[in-house]
Amino acid sequence: MADVTSTVGGRPLEPEELRRLDAWWRAANYLSVGQIYLMGNPLLREPLLPEHVKPRLLGHWGTTPGLNFLYAHLNRAIMARDLSMMYVIGPGHGGPGLVASAYLDGTYSEVYPDISLDEDGLRKLFMQFSFPGGIPSHVAPETPGSIHEGGELGYALSHAYGAAFDNPDLVVAAVVGDGEAETGPLATSWHSTKFVDPRRDGAVLPILHLNGYKIANPTVLARITDEELDALMRGYGHTPYVVSGSDPEEMHQAFAATLDHCLDEIREIQEGARSGGRTERPRWPMIVLRSPKGWTGPAEVDGKRVEGYWRSHQVPFADARQDDGHRKVLEDWMRSYRPEELFDDAGTPVQEVAELHPAGERRMSASPHANGGELLRDLRMPDFRDYAVPVEHPGTGAVESTRVLGGFLRDVMARNMETFRMFAPDENSSNRLQDVMEVTDRTWNAEILPYDDHLAVDGRIMEMLSEHTCQGWLEGYLLTGRHGFFSCYEAFIHLVDSMFNQHAKWLKTTDDIPWRRPVASLNYLLTSHVWRQDHNGFSHQDPGFIDHVVNKKADVIRVYLPADANTLLSVADHCLRSRQYVNVIVAGKQPALQYLSMDEAIVHATKGIGIWDWASTDEGQEPDVVVGCAGDVPTMEALAATDLLRGFFPDLRLRFVNVVDLMRLQGHEEHPHGLPDADFDALFTKDKPVIFAYHGYPWLIHRLTYRRTNHHNIHVRGYKEEGTTTTPFDMAVMNQIDRFNLAMDVIDRVPRLQATSGHARESLKNRLIEHRIHVRSHGEDLPEIRSWEFSRGGGPTVLTTDAEKSAPEG
Amino acid sequence: MADVTSTVGGRPLEPEELRRLDAWWRAANYLSVGQIYLMGNPLLREPLLPEHVKPRLLGHWGTTPGLNFLYAHLNRAIMARDLSMMYVIGPGHGGPGLVASAYLDGTYSEVYPDISLDEDGLRKLFMQFSFPGGIPSHVAPETPGSIHEGGELGYALSHAYGAAFDNPDLVVAAVVGDGEAETGPLATSWHSTKFVDPRRDGAVLPILHLNGYKIANPTVLARITDEELDALMRGYGHTPYVVSGSDPEEMHQAFAATLDHCLDEIREIQEGARSGGRTERPRWPMIVLRSPKGWTGPAEVDGKRVEGYWRSHQVPFADARQDDGHRKVLEDWMRSYRPEELFDDAGTPVQEVAELHPAGERRMSASPHANGGELLRDLRMPDFRDYAVPVEHPGTGAVESTRVLGGFLRDVMARNMETFRMFAPDENSSNRLQDVMEVTDRTWNAEILPYDDHLAVDGRIMEMLSEHTCQGWLEGYLLTGRHGFFSCYEAFIHLVDSMFNQHAKWLKTTDDIPWRRPVASLNYLLTSHVWRQDHNGFSHQDPGFIDHVVNKKADVIRVYLPADANTLLSVADHCLRSRQYVNVIVAGKQPALQYLSMDEAIVHATKGIGIWDWASTDEGQEPDVVVGCAGDVPTMEALAATDLLRGFFPDLRLRFVNVVDLMRLQGHEEHPHGLPDADFDALFTKDKPVIFAYHGYPWLIHRLTYRRTNHHNIHVRGYKEEGTTTTPFDMAVMNQIDRFNLAMDVIDRVPRLQATSGHARESLKNRLIEHRIHVRSHGEDLPEIRSWEFSRGGGPTVLTTDAEKSAPEG
Repeated sequence: MADVTSTVGGRPLEPEELRRLDAWWRAANYLSVGQIYLMGNPLLREPLLPEHVKPRLLGHWGTTPGLNFLYAHLNRAIMARDLSMMYVIGPGHGGPGLVASAYLDGTYSEVYPDISLDEDGLRKLFMQFSFPGGIPSHVAPETPGSIHEGGELGYALSHAYGAAFDNPDLVVAAVVGDGEAETGPLATSWHSTKFVDPRRDGAVLPILHLNGYKIANPTVLARITDEELDALMRGYGHTPYVVSGSDPEEMHQAFAATLDHCLDEIREIQEGARSGGRTERPRWPMIVLRSPKGWTGPAEVDGKRVEGYWRSHQVPFADARQDDGHRKVLEDWMRSYRPEELFDDAGTPVQEVAELHPAGERRMSASPHANGGELLRDLRMPDFRDYAVPVEHPGTGAVESTRVLGGFLRDVMARNMETFRMFAPDENSSNRLQDVMEVTDRTWNAEILPYDDHLAVDGRIMEMLSEHTCQGWLEGYLLTGRHGFFSCYEAFIHLVDSMFNQHAKWLKTTDDIPWRRPVASLNYLLTSHVWRQDHNGFSHQDPGFIDHVVNKKADVIRVYLPADANTLLSVADHCLRSRQYVNVIVAGKQPALQYLSMDEAIVHATKGIGIWDWASTDEGQEPDVVVGCAGDVPTMEALAATDLLRGFFPDLRLRFVNVVDLMRLQGHEEHPHGLPDADFDALFTKDKPVIFAYHGYPWLIHRLTYRRTNHHNIHVRGYKEEGTTTTPFDMAVMNQIDRFNLAMDVIDRVPRLQATSGHARESLKNRLIEHRIHVRSHGEDLPEIRSWEFSRGGGPTVLTTDAEKSAPEG
Repeated sequence: MADVTSTVGGRPLEPEELRRLDAWWRAANYLSVGQIYLMGNPLLREPLLPEHVKPRLLGHWGTTPGLNFLYAHLNRAIMARDLSMMYVIGPGHGGPGLVASAYLDGTYSEVYPDISLDEDGLRKLFMQFSFPGGIPSHVAPETPGSIHEGGELGYALSHAYGAAFDNPDLVVAAVVGDGEAETGPLATSWHSTKFVDPRRDGAVLPILHLNGYKIANPTVLARITDEELDALMRGYGHTPYVVSGSDPEEMHQAFAATLDHCLDEIREIQEGARSGGRTERPRWPMIVLRSPKGWTGPAEVDGKRVEGYWRSHQVPFADARQDDGHRKVLEDWMRSYRPEELFDDAGTPVQEVAELHPAGERRMSASPHANGGELLRDLRMPDFRDYAVPVEHPGTGAVESTRVLGGFLRDVMARNMETFRMFAPDENSSNRLQDVMEVTDRTWNAEILPYDDHLAVDGRIMEMLSEHTCQGWLEGYLLTGRHGFFSCYEAFIHLVDSMFNQHAKWLKTTDDIPWRRPVASLNYLLTSHVWRQDHNGFSHQDPGFIDHVVNKKADVIRVYLPADANTLLSVADHCLRSRQYVNVIVAGKQPALQYLSMDEAIVHATKGIGIWDWASTDEGQEPDVVVGCAGDVPTMEALAATDLLRGFFPDLRLRFVNVVDLMRLQGHEEHPHGLPDADFDALFTKDKPVIFAYHGYPWLIHRLTYRRTNHHNIHVRGYKEEGTTTTPFDMAVMNQIDRFNLAMDVIDRVPRLQATSGHARESLKNRLIEHRIHVRSHGEDLPEIRSWEFSRGGGPTVLTTDAEKSAPEG
């Protein structure tokens, strides 16, 4: 038909092949409509009655026939070429289509035996969709073959690339909806072409599906000129091939020819690169598929345009149960797929349909890559104790904790060069993890100049200045059974708040799906954190990601605030070995005091919370006051405060408690890591004042502890949104989490100190004033603060800021 | 020199003009380096000594000379053409450059008289930069002419377009750094070309500044081929003009010619469109400026490449105070700008430099658009009471609250067709605000097909499927003195968590800058909220944005949860009139019960919290229990629970408290809206159980109330991350915020009910079971729940879900 145009010519399909392809497509479309509308009479073997139609119609038809069309064609290609292929579906609300295809190729009944390949199974398949107690409407974890729910738009391509990395034989077909294409994360993820290695990595075949409309508006990419769209895709590094139209037969021929051509190109690119003949960055093929929204659905309902219009987006017409006319439209629509040709008497898909899918794990719905836990192997781990910083006495040294971690990660990398990658938005070195570059490079498949350092096509440090893309790559990499580590400036991890939400929800859901195997945890290192963004200022200061994270299910989230390098090593080792969590580690990159020997750090990190005896003066008795802390800078200030207090009040019984695992603070019934109340009371007492110095927003500590016996005595200092470009200590002072304010907090709350506290209070106030005068005159902190050491330790300590310049800074 | 290439030919600069342009540039560069390094000897009138150099060096040199170069050239164009121009600086860390230029053109000393135009002023100018008690390092609110701090990358273009909308005479020069260009939000914001009206709106001139490196890596757009970059920009809808090189003289000539050409093109486009001759979407010009990172800085330091490399990103060498050699490099570098030619004996910029800037408000640093509060006028407001829903008795009706709001917003729009816009990521109609389309259309400057509805080049409803772009446009629009309204699905507003952070920080900072005038509040309507995303499932269910918002300074954030349409109207009217806040309004779009007459709603919304007498049975006495609620669905369930309880326990003294203004719950000392403790105690008692049904994550209520007398008796139900595709009531049951669970919560906590509660408890449990059986068999809620009405009201109520299909759904 005249309406079909295609960049690639040819009619590769024999009549019989065409007929079978179309039969699969009709079957998948039939099953999709059935899922959206029906709860009975699945084969239309009797006239459609009101009670056969669901009372609440939920689902999205618009994108579904296009997804089904692609599934059929990809199946054909897989069989013809024996491909290992995954299917990432950006328009995830086309869930019924993917369920339909997984049902047709048999996977669905394998993982859900109750949904059998017969009429009874069909009825249940229809009934369960978007039905209470049934399955969700999206390409959710419940859908076999999915690693991408698609509810929040923007991550189809980055997930697809994450899946393709280090899987040289895998082709990932990634459908990008034209709605999704308008999002920022998707718009930049096209540039992933500069981060894929044709020798080592698999290929991503993007399919931009222009069906023209979003919920209520046309889409931008469907309404720019063909020239602009072509230029845009070439600008992203692709060779675009367009297939446009609606006539099924011609579309089948055109798409089959185009897909063949693209897969040939991919093979040529890979063979060229792998044989060593081709070294320049390839121009990867991609497909633009223009087809009507709601393709093959009713053209009009009640005189209003439906097919090829936004009204097809969700349920094209809603009164099919009540309104006889609408029900007739539905019945005619479903019968237009000729179900009697597609299902046999028992309701089983007929042979010619059933044949159009590959076998076993070649089925996209059964790809082990899409159930990554099946492929997951433990990391080969070096012994983290080998990287220990010697700590002769607590509270000394000047060590960049994340640099120590970098040494450990280097060797994790070296031992896992096919299953481990690191991700950072241009911050890997700034975050002091540069030692990893001793064993691998930054991934870079664009121009390299002679003076560039540590860039290589086969690098394993993924750095694009897009937190979204880094996160998307990592999620795709983890969900296909590998391991990774994401380091990020603390403030800007908020850019992926919403992506974290979706990943945490995915993990929570998969916990309850027996056939889904656990995947490696998503590990965040948040550094360049709020207390040491003194040089970049207020916009770079935000410790709220932790607050965001703890809103998600306790089963899947963990938060660690190691106060020194050895504790960080122990925590990182634990996180890298874990499964099915999101681990958030917050640790500074600037030279900082060290407190615990490796052995002490292991004990402390394992307990997650504990009394530091060497910093306490309660001698095992009931204390006058508990000083608590979490985070490296708060720990240092809290220690300095206790130092000051000991000077003023030699007989003060002070207990010092440090928290590594933040969730220990919460009740045991609320979080698996939560301390039992008796243990909490043993640490924090039932009735003594607690001064708590916390890394982030102070109210989080209240939220975590509000049910504790002694909660009304807990006084928390933290970041209260006071910041600018200044010195490190001035940042603490602005937020009253500095040693002087903390010491005054203690004095204010210990009744027996009141009578004799006049001198101490005066002295502390004077030193605060001295600080303010000094810092405003000299632009740096008082020498005594820069070189402070804990008085129960010994030996000299100088916390210089010189090392700040040893690596690139944001 | 041979290294300079340019799309546009010509050498438009006369020698004298060239000399003066270069003098300005040298002066701005000199002042920039001085700010980063010096605290004394600002004119180098004595040899540079260690004490002249700041002890802590903070700032970013790399991007700065490019920004200064552009400022000089834009100045020239403004003067030559009498342009109204703004300058939006994506690489906001180039703060010293913008401060330098604002100082040279006199604005800086006007707004900060202490920083005078003489040697003493120069010394202070240098000293204050990135210095404690001084100014931040970025193009922060403190910087005259800025609406864009630039610390978090991605929003330069969307801010620029926001500024240009409805300002037909304005040209916004927007620098996009090549680092920023990799971010998702920036990558899609290029498509703003499809949302600008050349007749009504001003022009944005994007300048993609390729200096080749980010913090530690090359940039993607600097390392793709020229052809790809050209195609990419054409794909985005631009005509790109490249200026590339480093030789200053030739670069001046080439850039001047290119800028002239682009401004000519912009004028032609606008004249063509405004004379009616040109109707097709224009291909706007944009400039690619390739210049070295750290241009004019030291080529090498210690034998390491600096100019044109990532080492220029921040402070190119850090030991200038301690290391004589480095200090010599610094002195030579600064003297290379020939300060003796640029400043007179008093230290004032010499005439030839001072002349290269326009006068008064034509200075980019003094543009009133960049201090939008100066231009802000109140909205012409219709009387919101005219849109009131009649409520004859509380707890009846079936009204879509946001649709009612849509009528009000329609008339706000109609009265403010030059200063008010609405923004939504393809959700304006889905969110039931479609009545606005009676007076304006959706903005659309791309292909329009005959059957498209309500699309127009001059529409005022901005819908792109990019929350980032919508938010960026709106921020730019507000910061330049206009008004706006953003509606969004609740779950996906998390996409702009980080943008909200930056805007809230901007507002907080401007509160303390006397010359910054207050701007209109940023108003969010969050709808399609967690309790009614039953049809889209778990990925669409997240009420955590409120938690995120309340981490920011209490002075700038407000959160409202109106339970019905009249309350929503009153709240919206209040928010639209307010200044300097971020207002978050959460309200449902589905048919829902109505409770308050307009007069009652005004009183209730004004108080923000209050007892609903008609729902209470305490008759002014001390109650047995307080039932609190916030949010429309929780309010309905809480009312239904009280209904059930009244049936079981006729003598129960129950007090019903509804919260509209969430911050009323917090202490008065923590939030300006916080209730004094006595008032809180009067509502919630000092010792009676409180059952609180809250819209979002339950622990937020604990966080807000933990200091209240009766806190330990407050039991909160809310969303606890249990969701899927199901029915509305089943969502409530899954999270135990439904009427049955709430009623059982009350029974569990009122001691005097315990003895007689057996029957009630049994009955409630049975009804929960009945619900579960029904919903899993029929796929819809029990009829009694769908049509429930409050028994103290009267008359029939049917809450149908039919209306769900009356508008597009996501």
